[in-house]
Amino acid sequence: MSSTKERVCIIGSGNWGSAIAKIVGRNVIGSSRFEEPINMWVFEEMIDGRKLTDIINTEHENVRYLPGIQLPANIRAVPDLLDAVKGATVLIFVVPHQFVKGICDQLHGSVPPTTKAISLIKGVDVKAKSLALISDVIAQSLSIDVSVLMGANIANEVARDKFCETTVGCRVRANGELFRELFNTPYFRVNVVEDVAGVELCGALKNIVAIGAGLADGLEYGDNTKAALIRIGLMEMKKFARMFYQGVKEETFFESCGVADLITTCAGGRNRRVAEAHARTGKPFEQLEQEMLNGQKLQGTSTALELHEVLRQKGLCKEFPLFTTIYEICYENLPASRIVENI
Amino acid sequence: MSSTKERVCIIGSGNWGSAIAKIVGRNVIGSSRFEEPINMWVFEEMIDGRKLTDIINTEHENVRYLPGIQLPANIRAVPDLLDAVKGATVLIFVVPHQFVKGICDQLHGSVPPTTKAISLIKGVDVKAKSLALISDVIAQSLSIDVSVLMGANIANEVARDKFCETTVGCRVRANGELFRELFNTPYFRVNVVEDVAGVELCGALKNIVAIGAGLADGLEYGDNTKAALIRIGLMEMKKFARMFYQGVKEETFFESCGVADLITTCAGGRNRRVAEAHARTGKPFEQLEQEMLNGQKLQGTSTALELHEVLRQKGLCKEFPLFTTIYEICYENLPASRIVENI
Repeated sequence: MSSTKERVCIIGSGNWGSAIAKIVGRNVIGSSRFEEPINMWVFEEMIDGRKLTDIINTEHENVRYLPGIQLPANIRAVPDLLDAVKGATVLIFVVPHQFVKGICDQLHGSVPPTTKAISLIKGVDVKAKSLALISDVIAQSLSIDVSVLMGANIANEVARDKFCETTVGCRVRANGELFRELFNTPYFRVNVVEDVAGVELCGALKNIVAIGAGLADGLEYGDNTKAALIRIGLMEMKKFARMFYQGVKEETFFESCGVADLITTCAGGRNRRVAEAHARTGKPFEQLEQEMLNGQKLQGTSTALELHEVLRQKGLCKEFPLFTTIYEICYENLPASRIVENI
Repeated sequence: MSSTKERVCIIGSGNWGSAIAKIVGRNVIGSSRFEEPINMWVFEEMIDGRKLTDIINTEHENVRYLPGIQLPANIRAVPDLLDAVKGATVLIFVVPHQFVKGICDQLHGSVPPTTKAISLIKGVDVKAKSLALISDVIAQSLSIDVSVLMGANIANEVARDKFCETTVGCRVRANGELFRELFNTPYFRVNVVEDVAGVELCGALKNIVAIGAGLADGLEYGDNTKAALIRIGLMEMKKFARMFYQGVKEETFFESCGVADLITTCAGGRNRRVAEAHARTGKPFEQLEQEMLNGQKLQGTSTALELHEVLRQKGLCKEFPLFTTIYEICYENLPASRIVENI
């Protein structure tokens, strides 16, 4: 007979995926609920002539994406996706959002319907001019229940055991509790809310607000103005989520995924930083993205564009003045100073 | 017959009082609802041999507390309190909280019961080991309706017309609307909520949370931890307000007085700054207050002490782990690092 314990697989091994591997790898040691070996699917790369999976499996360090952090020895890097998920009853999705569909296509038919999944992916999927949650894309593609985990969780700080909180959004309470047990530690505190859409939209929409905060910084508008823009942004996030998704809860926006992640994202982060540079230099966002981000993408501008398409189609732009103004500054040459004049 | 317009008096002329004088002074020009002349009670001081009231009335600048900012000419500095309030139908209280009782004692019998007051004073009053709202102290002393105004409103930024928001908490809706008309400008946006206690407690309790944020800064715990402490602080503020006062609304904590003021206070501000120094140097708060604040008082520590007395008496310390830990760090030599270990 096979074990009755849950078998966990982490799909993804970037900066955040590796930090999470450290947490769940340690948490399952001695657990009565989870098997100790955890597969982590790693997109194979060669590092100085060696396979990244070999390095992770021998040195227990993801030298490429989370250097300097020791991973637990029960984390096993697997280069083949289907090998990695084989036998898994719990899937943790933590890949860049543009890869989700391709991964789900590959997994199709290999994942039992009782599998419990959780998405740590921040962003939204756009299809035919409407937004889709990444968790919905996974759930519909694989016909499984998908929870989400979002919060004020800068990966490098989490990996160094700095205290923080996070939010699990679930549809099925029992699955939320399972994920609490899998992720919760004294320095990584999990709160569970039965609100997948609210939690996930916080993770996506905060990056738009961070653009606004960065513009205020670049224009040297001071702490009052920046706090006002963050607050107005939080209100528009809440309004949008509640307008477009049923069951989104007011309280979700007080969780780590809401107010705390917004504070962190508007204090540091690349969206804020590039927007500050735009306000100071007047250079287009696209140019600054290339100059400043070393190949990384700016999520705030693309999410603003996607959201704007939806709002425009439904005639709702005036009800979201901050989101609309940020879109216009990013894509329609509106001067940065209009960030306060237009709202 | 006397005018049917409201006559406004500003009681106080410090940094914040003077910034507010600039706003309301301009707002009443041409108003059909408010008389243009506004008395501002000024505690008389001599500046280089001249009376401060004379300087304000001739040069229209409070050179002592808001230098470099032109006040509207309809603001008239009056050194005698009873002269200043004579005939006023609207009173704006904006003095340090320790002076409120003395001022109310002086005003007793000189203020008609129809007078509409608003308190811009941040802090709580402690009597016989229970907390009292400053607005209640004024209301009970003078038997008048008292609203409050709180928000992410650093005085020097407001005085320079930097965009921000503020929150008016009222008991009587019509009075809230009156104050919106008196204070609202395109760069100083007023939201009105019918929740005096919620708004006022935000203004007082945020300073305790700022101590926690400053400790995290001093310990170099990073953005995740700081955001988590701010969020937990916001939750304890909400829990305390709703436990001790009826009618406190969840939404109030999403207003400028709540989340926005908390963000501003935890980003800058003297409470955060002194707490950071405490974590770095280990020096007692009292010593740092003397070394760093040039005579100003640290509100966060004293409010933490006052709150702790109430919580201890009612056996509620464990339900407010952040407030309790901050009290113990400030007054019972608990190491600063316990800020995350104890919560």
